[in-house]
Amino acid sequence: MSTKIDVPEESSHVAKEKATVAVAPKQGGWKKGVGIMDFILRLGAIAASLGAAATMGTSDETIPFFTQFFQFEASYDSFPTFQFFVIALALVGGYLVLSLPFSIITIVRPHAVGARLLLIILDTVFLTLTAASAAAAADIVYLAHNGNQDTNWIAICNQFGDFCRAVSGAVVSSFVAVVLFVLLIVMSALALMRH
Amino acid sequence: MSTKIDVPEESSHVAKEKATVAVAPKQGGWKKGVGIMDFILRLGAIAASLGAAATMGTSDETIPFFTQFFQFEASYDSFPTFQFFVIALALVGGYLVLSLPFSIITIVRPHAVGARLLLIILDTVFLTLTAASAAAAADIVYLAHNGNQDTNWIAICNQFGDFCRAVSGAVVSSFVAVVLFVLLIVMSALALMRH
Repeated sequence: MSTKIDVPEESSHVAKEKATVAVAPKQGGWKKGVGIMDFILRLGAIAASLGAAATMGTSDETIPFFTQFFQFEASYDSFPTFQFFVIALALVGGYLVLSLPFSIITIVRPHAVGARLLLIILDTVFLTLTAASAAAAADIVYLAHNGNQDTNWIAICNQFGDFCRAVSGAVVSSFVAVVLFVLLIVMSALALMRH
Repeated sequence: MSTKIDVPEESSHVAKEKATVAVAPKQGGWKKGVGIMDFILRLGAIAASLGAAATMGTSDETIPFFTQFFQFEASYDSFPTFQFFVIALALVGGYLVLSLPFSIITIVRPHAVGARLLLIILDTVFLTLTAASAAAAADIVYLAHNGNQDTNWIAICNQFGDFCRAVSGAVVSSFVAVVLFVLLIVMSALALMRH
């Protein structure tokens, strides 16, 4: 009698193992896809952040006449906010390059939790840094374009058009990096949940 | 012979079940603790964000003399950045109040994944909003304190001391909210990982 009971138990055991084998690669494949997407988005974020830092860092315009209010030259050095922007975006770009190996780990080993958790925490910190520097720079760009009546801060973009265009481009690029960071964090959270 | 094999298998099965029962409440307790901490941090973030919005919204100073450069009155209306700050921080406060029920769900049901995932995604979005408005406002506060030589934007804090103090307090409070958001996201990620 005991042999009769044994047989279905073993077969169900085998069936379970088969089911496990059948499901595992599918879940692994889904996670591998997230890992590859993560890697691609990271490359985009590197381009956006380093592009923003480089554009801002080389923004410089010299005008050949002297007015009552302006110096001859406008560059990112004139504004502490823009200096912070260049340093912050360069840091973000450096972090993103260093994070690529960890992104590769999540592709090669889709069930590695440690790498994903490290990435989501550091991504959150650097998202904050990027958003802060992008918003601060956007603020100064707005003032440069429009000035402020109440405090008598006059617009400078009439004089320094090329400088303003370069700076505006850098700000747009940094906001692209912010959007990519948010996508990266949401994807990592989804992958962690399915663990 | 088959009975001899059966007996240890069953006993090991029972032992496994006991081990599962012994471990489960401990994990649940750990997650419940994270949920309670989440709730408390959320209350702190509500206070910080609504406090910042209220302080900024009521900042207003009238000075009784007229100079060449200044109007009689300085209020947050003078700066679009500060208007954005008030709206953004009020939105963040509103979101945090609405997120409290979901935080309670993670306390009552420590293994609920959906609520945690919803919170981590929305927290990331509102962290970005808070960091952006805080940084933009801090930027204007810096300009108000120090001015900018190159563009001839003069400091206004000598005239509007109380206004500057109120605005600076609001900015500090909003950065407290940013730090609390980062903690909330890191904690949610840890709890999701242990799922």
